[in-house]
Amino acid sequence: MSKEITSRSVDFSKWYNDIVVKAGLAEHSSVRGCMVIKPYGFAIWEKMKSILDARFKATGHVNAAFPLLIPKSFLSKEAAHVEGFAKECAVVTHYRLKNAEDGSGVIVDPDAKLEEELIIRPTSETIIWNTYKNWIRSYRDLPLLINQWANVMRWEMRTRLFLRTSEFFWQEGHTAHATKQEAIDETEMILKEYANFMENYIGVPVIKGVKTESERFAGADNTYTTEGLMQDGKALQMGTSHFLGQNFAKAFDVKFQTKEGGLEHVWATSWGVSTRLMGALVMAHSDDKGLVVPPKLAPIQVVIVPILGKKMNAKLDLLQAAVDNIKGQLDGVSVKYDGDDTKRAGFKFAEYEMKGIPLRIAIGPRDLDNGTVEIARRDTQTKDTYSIDNVGDTVRQLLEEIQNSLYQKALDFRKSHTTKVDTFDEFKEVLNGKGGFVYAHWDGTAETEAAIKEATKATIRCIPLDNEQEEGVCVFSGKPSKQRVLFAKAY
Amino acid sequence: MSKEITSRSVDFSKWYNDIVVKAGLAEHSSVRGCMVIKPYGFAIWEKMKSILDARFKATGHVNAAFPLLIPKSFLSKEAAHVEGFAKECAVVTHYRLKNAEDGSGVIVDPDAKLEEELIIRPTSETIIWNTYKNWIRSYRDLPLLINQWANVMRWEMRTRLFLRTSEFFWQEGHTAHATKQEAIDETEMILKEYANFMENYIGVPVIKGVKTESERFAGADNTYTTEGLMQDGKALQMGTSHFLGQNFAKAFDVKFQTKEGGLEHVWATSWGVSTRLMGALVMAHSDDKGLVVPPKLAPIQVVIVPILGKKMNAKLDLLQAAVDNIKGQLDGVSVKYDGDDTKRAGFKFAEYEMKGIPLRIAIGPRDLDNGTVEIARRDTQTKDTYSIDNVGDTVRQLLEEIQNSLYQKALDFRKSHTTKVDTFDEFKEVLNGKGGFVYAHWDGTAETEAAIKEATKATIRCIPLDNEQEEGVCVFSGKPSKQRVLFAKAY
Repeated sequence: MSKEITSRSVDFSKWYNDIVVKAGLAEHSSVRGCMVIKPYGFAIWEKMKSILDARFKATGHVNAAFPLLIPKSFLSKEAAHVEGFAKECAVVTHYRLKNAEDGSGVIVDPDAKLEEELIIRPTSETIIWNTYKNWIRSYRDLPLLINQWANVMRWEMRTRLFLRTSEFFWQEGHTAHATKQEAIDETEMILKEYANFMENYIGVPVIKGVKTESERFAGADNTYTTEGLMQDGKALQMGTSHFLGQNFAKAFDVKFQTKEGGLEHVWATSWGVSTRLMGALVMAHSDDKGLVVPPKLAPIQVVIVPILGKKMNAKLDLLQAAVDNIKGQLDGVSVKYDGDDTKRAGFKFAEYEMKGIPLRIAIGPRDLDNGTVEIARRDTQTKDTYSIDNVGDTVRQLLEEIQNSLYQKALDFRKSHTTKVDTFDEFKEVLNGKGGFVYAHWDGTAETEAAIKEATKATIRCIPLDNEQEEGVCVFSGKPSKQRVLFAKAY
Repeated sequence: MSKEITSRSVDFSKWYNDIVVKAGLAEHSSVRGCMVIKPYGFAIWEKMKSILDARFKATGHVNAAFPLLIPKSFLSKEAAHVEGFAKECAVVTHYRLKNAEDGSGVIVDPDAKLEEELIIRPTSETIIWNTYKNWIRSYRDLPLLINQWANVMRWEMRTRLFLRTSEFFWQEGHTAHATKQEAIDETEMILKEYANFMENYIGVPVIKGVKTESERFAGADNTYTTEGLMQDGKALQMGTSHFLGQNFAKAFDVKFQTKEGGLEHVWATSWGVSTRLMGALVMAHSDDKGLVVPPKLAPIQVVIVPILGKKMNAKLDLLQAAVDNIKGQLDGVSVKYDGDDTKRAGFKFAEYEMKGIPLRIAIGPRDLDNGTVEIARRDTQTKDTYSIDNVGDTVRQLLEEIQNSLYQKALDFRKSHTTKVDTFDEFKEVLNGKGGFVYAHWDGTAETEAAIKEATKATIRCIPLDNEQEEGVCVFSGKPSKQRVLFAKAY
């Protein structure tokens, strides 16, 4: 199977698509820009969801569900928001079909035109703040800490599985607070939760920072971001957390009575991560043999493959006892036993490599005599023989090692692909060479930011939190600058 | 709070709506026909989901995600299906908005008209079978046992929260099989899983049966159903499981190579339960004081309310110790402690009654001296004093008693509201009197079924499985009949 995968060095983009499709994660559907998430991909996404959901609940949030459709006029209520989101979106104009008179099928019934068009949500700030208006009266109703897991739609012209699709799946948190500081604290707390998940579960180190004004969420006063680096040296924005100020409260007239008896607009945040994280998982760790799944997110952590055949046929009882023994030691570990005798072991090995199962345990006839098993690591593709007697401890230790090692490898890659530059020539040389993150002085203007993007396709990924302050000059304009910011080409 | 609820005896429909809104389960949104599921309602739905999802997985199914939008032409491919589903649905015709020239907001961009309109899925058979076409080649690819949790949309003219909304949430299973018998077995297995969940978790006894031809799912060869009886004597169809024959395989040309080397169309099933189950939960058990939630589905199973005030102020340490003691005994039980000193205990009691929390533990100053607590049951509204020493056992036993008692009460209600009738006068008398299920002979024709519906608004809910066979005459036509079928007015 692996020979069907395009090599990373030949065409990274094709390699990515090959893995997503051939590992059974997702595929394009017949509907332009919309994907089908296949069972194996969905199982990984379900793990991500359950871990994140537990963290949201542990930090005081509850789930709810708001409508899929948003009245067109709602989008116009927040001036910046409509500019950002109203443009490329799916518009519902009619609510009925009827049989064509010529019998050719069904056609849209012109008599069933909606008075006001409805938009399939590209994000839900407007419909949610229109709802919060009725829920918030007093400081006693605050904070309101709500999340929803939902599908959203943005009409994308160029789509890539998981990274940019018209329909995608995400969670969107929408919180309401009595004070500015509390809203900012929430925004930052969520950013930390996101970073923790990305680093300790997906195994991707991220730079936490704030976006420049031109890269902010449409309607936000400040956008915090987590930026990861993929194997091709391009950055991936993995999740964002927005401090919305009072913008949506003002747009939807949401005020609350303060403890002191005054009437004030509510402070807001919103934050989200999406199925794009699946793209990060693929691009950060996989290799030319297929997907590599971090153990903490693997639907199957260990696969047991017996070496069937003539020699084994005499020992099937011993084999069954060995499998039971192993499973008995692996409580809490997700184990699959593949005893299918219509497929060769070599074929199975390739299949499980393609799917990125962290550990493969092979049992041959001689292993049964010796009380051993052969364990192969997917990440390093190394294998060793271990005693079956303490295979439980061995597996647990190896899974932990793999999880740590994937993160460390991604961190090492980032370190070797992060460069401080002082001139625009250096800037371009790095970007066109090894790529990666580039720290450079910037004069702080949107004009320079746009000019650099125009010239190099690199964008300011963020101004890192706790960024080192130092005097310097902008690599592009030569004007004075107080800090380097993080540039990269990005997805 | 409870005095705000309309009494069941005054207006059942208004009572239902009052409970859904005032218990914080759901409300209507600004988008016609679409609801907002509020956090408390969503928490109950999440419990339903997680229990059902675990059962689906235990019976071999996996989850996936298919597109929200369906090309219009797909609906026309299965003749019966398009008649049933293409009519009232949300139609996406455009993919872009633009600023109005007069500055009044955004308008639909006429240049962004889709070549083919897209329908928001009313159900997903068509898009899924169009996908399965590429997944199924050989008998080795079968069975395919896939479920998705999704939002769907049917443009409803008259909506009721949870029971009938334009957008609703559900799971839809779509399975593919090599043989007819295997598909029928799947359909029936799922029906049993549904009935088990409805009876042992929601606490609503259901009649399992098959629909008449005119009540079948559009595109099915056979529709199995689970019918529950609500407190107003009307039936609620709680979930259906469809044997789809080879209809969708033929419509989408899905064939597989058999073990013997032949080429055959695949056999199919589909099955679903929706947020309608929330409506069943409300209507089956609640009373004029509010919601009653069965313990197994209660997000909060026990609420502890201290009787605060002057006498308690001297004993706050003892109170804390008592609360810790209780919580320590309630591992695995969902407990909330409400120590809010800005609200009176009586106000809290009413609030938790409204929300249907199964058990309330009150602790007064004297209880602290006596080593006791007062435990009130929501379902029977009885209360008793118990020793704090074994409050864990007491609570567990009471929760089990409540769960069983709710089911038993619903079963008793159904027994007393199930009537065998032999004449059409009796039939009408029962339906216009106490209502409920009516077993009557029917001649088996769609004409008679329609005439009875026209005359009485009652429909055939199902032909029960393992129905008793007996000679008789149709209550309407007088023609011969071999069995009684189940009639009722229904939601």
